Amino acid sequence: MDTDVPDPWSTTTAELYRTLRARLDDDDPAALATIVDVEGSAYRRQGAKMIVVPGDDSYGSITAGCLEGPVVDLANAVLDEGRARVETFDLMDGDEWGLGLGCNGVIDILLEPLDDSFGVALEALANHEPATVLTAVESSDPDVAVGDRTVLGPDRSPLGDSDRNRLPTELLSNASDVTASLRESASAKTVRLETSAGSASVFVDHLEPVPELLLFGNQNDVHPVARLGRDVGFRVAVASSRGSRSDESDFPDAHRVVSTHPTEIDDAVRTPENTYAVLMSHNFLDDRLALETLLEETSVPYVGLMGPRKRFEEMRTEFEQEDVQFSNSQLERVSTPVGLDLGSDEPIQIALSIVSEALAVRNDRSGGRLKAREGPIHERVKTP
Amino acid sequence: MDTDVPDPWSTTTAELYRTLRARLDDDDPAALATIVDVEGSAYRRQGAKMIVVPGDDSYGSITAGCLEGPVVDLANAVLDEGRARVETFDLMDGDEWGLGLGCNGVIDILLEPLDDSFGVALEALANHEPATVLTAVESSDPDVAVGDRTVLGPDRSPLGDSDRNRLPTELLSNASDVTASLRESASAKTVRLETSAGSASVFVDHLEPVPELLLFGNQNDVHPVARLGRDVGFRVAVASSRGSRSDESDFPDAHRVVSTHPTEIDDAVRTPENTYAVLMSHNFLDDRLALETLLEETSVPYVGLMGPRKRFEEMRTEFEQEDVQFSNSQLERVSTPVGLDLGSDEPIQIALSIVSEALAVRNDRSGGRLKAREGPIHERVKTP
Repeated sequence: MDTDVPDPWSTTTAELYRTLRARLDDDDPAALATIVDVEGSAYRRQGAKMIVVPGDDSYGSITAGCLEGPVVDLANAVLDEGRARVETFDLMDGDEWGLGLGCNGVIDILLEPLDDSFGVALEALANHEPATVLTAVESSDPDVAVGDRTVLGPDRSPLGDSDRNRLPTELLSNASDVTASLRESASAKTVRLETSAGSASVFVDHLEPVPELLLFGNQNDVHPVARLGRDVGFRVAVASSRGSRSDESDFPDAHRVVSTHPTEIDDAVRTPENTYAVLMSHNFLDDRLALETLLEETSVPYVGLMGPRKRFEEMRTEFEQEDVQFSNSQLERVSTPVGLDLGSDEPIQIALSIVSEALAVRNDRSGGRLKAREGPIHERVKTP
Repeated sequence: MDTDVPDPWSTTTAELYRTLRARLDDDDPAALATIVDVEGSAYRRQGAKMIVVPGDDSYGSITAGCLEGPVVDLANAVLDEGRARVETFDLMDGDEWGLGLGCNGVIDILLEPLDDSFGVALEALANHEPATVLTAVESSDPDVAVGDRTVLGPDRSPLGDSDRNRLPTELLSNASDVTASLRESASAKTVRLETSAGSASVFVDHLEPVPELLLFGNQNDVHPVARLGRDVGFRVAVASSRGSRSDESDFPDAHRVVSTHPTEIDDAVRTPENTYAVLMSHNFLDDRLALETLLEETSVPYVGLMGPRKRFEEMRTEFEQEDVQFSNSQLERVSTPVGLDLGSDEPIQIALSIVSEALAVRNDRSGGRLKAREGPIHERVKTP
C-alpha cells in the first residue's frame, strides 16, 4: 500500500536517504548529485540532492527539469571514472531555458560516486543524529582534492572512517564558525577558506535526521494523517494506547507502531527536537495525560491537540486543580485547535491541515499565505 | 498507481460520488448514511456521508469511529427493508464514548438504500453542476413520508424523475429561503416546515461539484501537485502547452490532460467557480499569457502563479506596457508566490503548500494556524 515512490519527483528526503543506504548495503552503484552553489534564480537550494543509478533512472530533483538530463549523463560518466567532480551550469545564456523559472541561474553541482564517505553520514542519520558533511569542491592546495571529505557528528568531532581522503584539520578549524552557524539553521553553503598552501572551497552540508510525526491514538482518523505525513516526507510513528491496536499491520503507513501509556509517551519519543506530536486519541483523559507528559518530560517543539479550543481550556482547568503548572514556553508548544485553517471537516483534509502545520512549525513558519508574507520565500542563510 | 482508495477513512468526496455512480450504473446495492442533524460535539458536520455495501465494507466516515459499527449494521437492515429511515444516536450518556472527542453529541443519521432519487443529484454533479437535495427526515403530515425527496438544479427547478415520492410543492416553496441560503454557503441543514396537514422536517443538502485543480505546465514538478491534489479530493486537470506531453499516460494522477495554448486556457476551464488554477509552466511568457487569459476570460477564484514575487512584478510591468489593465478584484484572485508558507523547497512539500492554499481559498480561509484564529473552527451556517 502506497509505500513505493510514485514518481522520482515526489521522492522525499527520507526516501533518498533510505535508497542511498540500501544501495550501499547491497553494493549497488549509484551517483549522488548535490547542488553546492547557486547564483540567480534557482528552483532548489544548496544541498538539494538527486540519486542517479547506472542507466537512466534517478530519484529526487535538483532543478526544475532544466538540468536533470545532462546531470544523469554526467553522473554515469562519474560512475565510470570513480571519482568526484564539480560541474558548473550557466543557464543565463541558453535560449531553451532562458525564460524558464528556476532555470536562469548559475548552478554548481557536485557529482560523486556513492561510497562509505557519505555512508558515515547516513549511518548517523539512521541513528537519529545529525551529521555535517564537509566536502572540498574546489582547491588550489595540492594537498586537497575535489571530493575530499570529513563528516562531523553532533559533538562536532569527525565521524567514522572511509576510503576517501579527509580534509586537513586546519581547514576544518577554519570552517568551524560556518559549520556551527549552518548547524543552527540546518542548511548548506559553500565557503572559501585559506589553507597553508593556497585555498579551497568547502561545501558544508548540514543534515538533520528525518522529522518524525508521532501520532498518539488508534482511531481510524489516524490513517489519513499517517499516510499524508509519510507521503510528504515525515517518518511516522503511531503510539497506540488502550492496546487494542498495536502493530504495524494495523497502520501500514506508519514506519513504526508502539503500544504505550499516555504517562509514558515520552518513551516513544526518540529525538525530541525532531518529533512532531499529534494527540488524537479522542479520549479526554488520555490526551490530557499525554500532553502533560510531553510538555514536562520532553522538549518536542510541537504538540498538536485535536479538538475545539474549549477542550484544551477544560484540560487547563484540571491542570490548575491538580496544581500542574506550565511555563509560557511550554504552552507555546501546544497547537490547538490542531492544524492550519483550511476550513474542511473531511478526514483526509483535516490530515492535510495537520501535516502542513507540522511542516510549517518545523521550518519556523506561520503557515499563512505566501502572498501575504513580506520578503523572500527562501530565508537567506545567516552565516558569518 | 495510487488511484485506489487506500483506506475507507481517506475516502474523498470525489471518490464517494464516483463509487455511488458506479454502483447505481451496475445495479450494485448500497446504502447511504448521511448526518442530518447534530447537537453537541461532533466530528463531522451535517451532510457528511458514508457508503455501506452489503456486508461489512464502508467508505467515508460520519463520526470519529463511535458510530460506524452500529451504522453498518443498520444500513444492512435498511437494504433489506428497502426504505429510508432516520436514527438518532444519543452519545451523551454512553460510558464508552462519553469522554470521546467528537462522540459526545446527539446525532441524527438518515439511512437509505441508494436509488435513482440520489442518482439525479449525482448526474448533475457529474455534469459539473450543483444540486440541492431536499429529503423529508420527519413528518406528521400523512402525505409526506421519511425519505420523500426532490432534487433541485442550478436554476432551483426540480431535476429528473425517480421512483421515490417527491416532496409537495408547498413544502418546497416554504423551504426556498433556506435553500437559497445553503446554496450560498454550500452546506447542509435540517429545517422544520409547516404543511397544510401538519409539519415536516426537511434535510436540505447542497452539493457542489468536486473542485478542479487546473495545472498549467508539463514539467516534472506537476506530478507531485497532481498526486497530492487528487489524494485530498480535487479533480485534477493538467493543461499542457508546447504539446510535447499531452496525454493521460504522462500524468497518471490527473483525471484529464488537455493540450492547450496559454491564450486559450479558458477553454480548459469547465466550471470557473469550481476551478483552482496553478500556473507552473516555468515559462515566463506562457505563464503571463495564461494569467491574462484566466483573469480576463474567466471568473476562476484562484490563479496561483509559481515563482518569486519579482516575476509577477515583471509581468505587471509588461501588462502596463501593453496597456492591459486589471481591476483590484481581478488581481486579488492572483496568488503569488503560490502556496502556504511552509518553508520547504522539496517538490512534494511545495505541492503540499499549493494544494493546502487552494483548499483554504475554496473554503474562504486564511491558511494560517487555527490556534491563532478567533472563534469556532467550523463556521456556523448562516440561515434564516
